[in-house]
Amino acid sequence: MKAQVLNAIKQPLNMEHHDDLSPDNSEVVIEIVAAALNRRDYWITQGMYPGIGTPVTLGSDGAGRVVSCGSDVSDLAAGDEVIINPGWRWGDNPMVQDEAFRILGMPDNGTFATQLVAPREQVYPKPPHLNWHEASALPLAGVTAYRAVITQGKLSRGERCLVTGIGGGVATFAVQFAAALGAEVTVTSSSDEKIANAERFGATAGFNYTQDGWTQQARDRIGEFDLIIDGAGGADYNQLVDLAAFGGRIVNYGATAGPPAKFDLFKLFWKQLKLTGSTMGSPQDFQSMLDFVNEHQIRPVVDGAYPLEGVNEALDRMKNSKQLGKIILEVSSIG
Amino acid sequence: MKAQVLNAIKQPLNMEHHDDLSPDNSEVVIEIVAAALNRRDYWITQGMYPGIGTPVTLGSDGAGRVVSCGSDVSDLAAGDEVIINPGWRWGDNPMVQDEAFRILGMPDNGTFATQLVAPREQVYPKPPHLNWHEASALPLAGVTAYRAVITQGKLSRGERCLVTGIGGGVATFAVQFAAALGAEVTVTSSSDEKIANAERFGATAGFNYTQDGWTQQARDRIGEFDLIIDGAGGADYNQLVDLAAFGGRIVNYGATAGPPAKFDLFKLFWKQLKLTGSTMGSPQDFQSMLDFVNEHQIRPVVDGAYPLEGVNEALDRMKNSKQLGKIILEVSSIG
Repeated sequence: MKAQVLNAIKQPLNMEHHDDLSPDNSEVVIEIVAAALNRRDYWITQGMYPGIGTPVTLGSDGAGRVVSCGSDVSDLAAGDEVIINPGWRWGDNPMVQDEAFRILGMPDNGTFATQLVAPREQVYPKPPHLNWHEASALPLAGVTAYRAVITQGKLSRGERCLVTGIGGGVATFAVQFAAALGAEVTVTSSSDEKIANAERFGATAGFNYTQDGWTQQARDRIGEFDLIIDGAGGADYNQLVDLAAFGGRIVNYGATAGPPAKFDLFKLFWKQLKLTGSTMGSPQDFQSMLDFVNEHQIRPVVDGAYPLEGVNEALDRMKNSKQLGKIILEVSSIG
Repeated sequence: MKAQVLNAIKQPLNMEHHDDLSPDNSEVVIEIVAAALNRRDYWITQGMYPGIGTPVTLGSDGAGRVVSCGSDVSDLAAGDEVIINPGWRWGDNPMVQDEAFRILGMPDNGTFATQLVAPREQVYPKPPHLNWHEASALPLAGVTAYRAVITQGKLSRGERCLVTGIGGGVATFAVQFAAALGAEVTVTSSSDEKIANAERFGATAGFNYTQDGWTQQARDRIGEFDLIIDGAGGADYNQLVDLAAFGGRIVNYGATAGPPAKFDLFKLFWKQLKLTGSTMGSPQDFQSMLDFVNEHQIRPVVDGAYPLEGVNEALDRMKNSKQLGKIILEVSSIG
């Protein structure tokens, strides 16, 4: 097998040849057909993630075919088309992950490789309506968006939903899921082009947050928001607190722009807002996300694809936040 | 009737003689027996509250006897012992107050007077086990604590609950309600005396937040908290985010120490915390609070009493945060 390995932080990933994998009793070995990048992969290469251990094969997202199963696995067979739930050892509490929780692709070897070994319970059928690129794009961002919008955000038909920083994978899925639910979806971006594209997959309005006065424009044109889905935080976080309706909810699945400079706790309590943190998703969230994607025939937005050999170029594209949707790695030949 | 009137901000309240009140069709006139102070009264005297109009009789909390009822009010009679729900025009949504929501005691004339007129739906039977001081102490802080701890905080038996800034009325009720629910209650204060007193009404541990290292001591002795009830915010707010358990909840009913200097959004999403703002309570909250207080025979903690003529001295005591529990005004002779 071949694997793209991180041997030290701030080094490019290095393609290496390793022995083929074999499963323990309860495991499955999968031939990866396509993998997808997440910002987490980039953070790890930069040393900006807790508890980094090397060498490790990165990659949380992948789709492929079953190669072999351990002796206790009777319900999968070689050739089955599958995707991998990258949230491992969530535990029994649907509200929050256990201490043992870990995300595929560090410390466990991930999907940027021709083979992966995973516990049986992490392996799910590939949604039949998705091609390999789309299937590989779904798991991490899909479950994160599902939990943020639906499990935690409890979005319902007709509500106004604001999704910030459209372009990232989670934000893109959040728009699609919110639109499929029948919500009125507004987006923000620093790119007018991304805003225009977001209308293709369900947004009905968008604002460029680098332009002064965008919050007032949003308020005038749309109104206040019942649910805000944010992965950024940062200096302007109070703008989101302002734009939330009385009794509104804000769900944060990340803080890529750093902690808020200030936080208007007065508005939080007077407007009776709910600010909820959300990370990845439980096994139940993952199954519900797949059911939702199948029911609504949702197709992940793909930015573009690189061969496995081009993983470092792919990481560069993510570093510069140029993408709209998921960046794919083609690992095996796609038949 | 006599009333303590604010004629201009930063002026002492002034006792004035006005005509006796008469009810409209759907109103009730009440002879106030005892009133209680809230921090809101002090903020209004200092001009630190939105939309202050003068002249106005302050006071949100009161208990007394029905004097007369409007023609549409058939289920109350002169002499009935009642308390007043100070949250007026909440509206139909239990999640959040309407724009029309207002708190008794500005703009409507309040309870620091010998008579009050109130809409029928704001008037509730006085809990029979309470004396007049206790009954007057209950409404505003009681409903705020009930909503924070139970409606929003969803505290359950056996959970660990931290109540900050014990001494204020809401915090005191929060401890009592949490203890009545069977939670393990820890408190904080800047006063060792208040911490010691808090054990009288249900706390099992307390920490002086002016002492370095109190959060580590709390973590070592108690562990992390499932629910934190805070009315302060302020520079050290991240200490509460640190002390919250994975999947924990923080409910803020105020921000008397100002906005947090920083806010650790990373911990919010990774620990999947829920930060909920809570203001006063709905009519359903008020009724549920009364039922809870009656069921558990909870008696409000009274700091001390002043005659109605001493309202300015009472406000001074609140200004200096010397009180533990509610500060009472005796309005009519208590028989």
